[in-house]
Amino acid sequence: MLKKKDKYKVAVVGATGAVGNEMIGVLEERGFPVLELLPLASRESEGEKIEFRERTWTVRRLSKDSFRDVDIAFFTAGAEQSREFATSAVLAGAVVIDSSSAFRLDPKVPLVVPEVNGGMVSQHSGIIASPDPYTIGMSLVLKPIHMRARVRRIVATVLESASGSGKKAMEELADQTVALLNFKEIEKKIYPHQIAFNCIPRIEAFEQTGSTKEEAEISRGIRRVMQDESIGVAVTAVHAPVFRCHSGALNIETEENLSPNEARAILSSARGVIVFDDPSRDIYPMPIDVAGKDEIYVGRIRADESVRNGLWLWLVIDNIRKGSALNAVQIAEELVK
Amino acid sequence: MLKKKDKYKVAVVGATGAVGNEMIGVLEERGFPVLELLPLASRESEGEKIEFRERTWTVRRLSKDSFRDVDIAFFTAGAEQSREFATSAVLAGAVVIDSSSAFRLDPKVPLVVPEVNGGMVSQHSGIIASPDPYTIGMSLVLKPIHMRARVRRIVATVLESASGSGKKAMEELADQTVALLNFKEIEKKIYPHQIAFNCIPRIEAFEQTGSTKEEAEISRGIRRVMQDESIGVAVTAVHAPVFRCHSGALNIETEENLSPNEARAILSSARGVIVFDDPSRDIYPMPIDVAGKDEIYVGRIRADESVRNGLWLWLVIDNIRKGSALNAVQIAEELVK
Repeated sequence: MLKKKDKYKVAVVGATGAVGNEMIGVLEERGFPVLELLPLASRESEGEKIEFRERTWTVRRLSKDSFRDVDIAFFTAGAEQSREFATSAVLAGAVVIDSSSAFRLDPKVPLVVPEVNGGMVSQHSGIIASPDPYTIGMSLVLKPIHMRARVRRIVATVLESASGSGKKAMEELADQTVALLNFKEIEKKIYPHQIAFNCIPRIEAFEQTGSTKEEAEISRGIRRVMQDESIGVAVTAVHAPVFRCHSGALNIETEENLSPNEARAILSSARGVIVFDDPSRDIYPMPIDVAGKDEIYVGRIRADESVRNGLWLWLVIDNIRKGSALNAVQIAEELVK
Repeated sequence: MLKKKDKYKVAVVGATGAVGNEMIGVLEERGFPVLELLPLASRESEGEKIEFRERTWTVRRLSKDSFRDVDIAFFTAGAEQSREFATSAVLAGAVVIDSSSAFRLDPKVPLVVPEVNGGMVSQHSGIIASPDPYTIGMSLVLKPIHMRARVRRIVATVLESASGSGKKAMEELADQTVALLNFKEIEKKIYPHQIAFNCIPRIEAFEQTGSTKEEAEISRGIRRVMQDESIGVAVTAVHAPVFRCHSGALNIETEENLSPNEARAILSSARGVIVFDDPSRDIYPMPIDVAGKDEIYVGRIRADESVRNGLWLWLVIDNIRKGSALNAVQIAEELVK
């Protein structure tokens, strides 16, 4: 359990990565009560300097001994690092808030989107997981719809941006794009195939079922966050040649009838959601609009007549911000409340 | 009706566009019995030269008088041109094969994918329409599944490439990409918003229902081609920053149970379809692989447990080739058979 204090010693694992970097910015913007910042990273980044609250903090190399006196440890460096080091942080007395996939499906670890199931924070045993970015987006939009009309089934096609695969994936998208426009050979290091001007319908490893880990994680994650295992969820997740923000088409079936106008009204007053939906003025959410935004943007809300009580929605989330860094910081805010 | 001859006078309207250009190539490759080629285009392209069967043909300016003695007139220049000039071609005695959206939903005009409903060709009254590219892809894959297991509902999210919006859209994607990588302002002429490194969830105008014309056309087109109005169809269509090939995730429900393995077996012997589906070797179709291919590529075939008899598929079609030029030429082949 976290001991309540005025200010906390906060570690950020993966401080020089896309999410870690954003997280330090979010901690500053939101005035999180940080007594001391401990930026941790791999050997490559050791000694780098990070600005936070008009002070310069030196990046330390992550080790099992890094967490002495740490109150809250944000993990943003991927599942492998979380699996290797989270236990050390917990044993040292820290509460871990993990943005990787390492613990998302662990029944002992609460999977939290504060606006949706913030109360779950109190049930942690040292680790709290932040869901996959698109799960966060879907839960914010679907929870209020679920409470009004009960969501029975979700069919989602998710287009994930390069930032979801880290800084090096973003560089690879840029480098391959430049190479192709100059009629040169491309290099592949992060993606299994060319990502520039292409779509790769496979994110993370395949499971026995034929779905990928990413698809399974979104399916199971949304049920965990919405606390309803009866919802049917089908997901296809695709790498798109976009730098930032995940977008996707959601087709849902509800138990009760819900008109597009009612859905718009419910979502207009939902926490963390912006309805961005006016066909007459060509307004619908796109990745380039949502980058840097705290909210989930939803548009293209319309009836689907092919099924009873069908509804289409189109959601875009900044996967780095609310999809990772901001949600983790909000979990910490819930924790220190 | 087309008078049977050994060789035909063939007009190609939009001969200098992406589809027209591909079509002339396809006519040559497949040895279509062309007596005389009449490349037609707008004033801008008048006088340009086109190579066909080791001869040079001069592009003429399209007018209502262009079609004298023409037997078959391919229209590839968009709906507006088709609406303005197709009747003149029919009155001059030609059979029009139209690749635009102008007549696709006209009940008097057969909408034909030769492998699926080639017999409909004989029912024309001067005009035969070639479906929207993704409708062609879906029909080739879903018809054999429908015949075995009856498709009840289709939920499709389609990612359309720039070539679907013409040569100038492809140039705009390239130009905007270069501008962004050089930190310059982008220019927008064809797309309503930035397309480079972005996704635009709106193709063609919005209808009253909140769906776009493109979405409605795919929904209605697939039922027309599969000749079954009882199939429920829900579509979201999105502009993706890809040059060539439309891809998309298809979620279907069938009346009879169909395992992924059975679906793979059925599709492996389906005409015009290639099963490209081996997760263990990271094989699934992508736009860059399918460009220039005659067949529809299908992969990611897997069960969807969220509904009775659910199945996911991922289809990629070269929208310019089988999606437009090749399908139109195959319609002509059916016609002269």
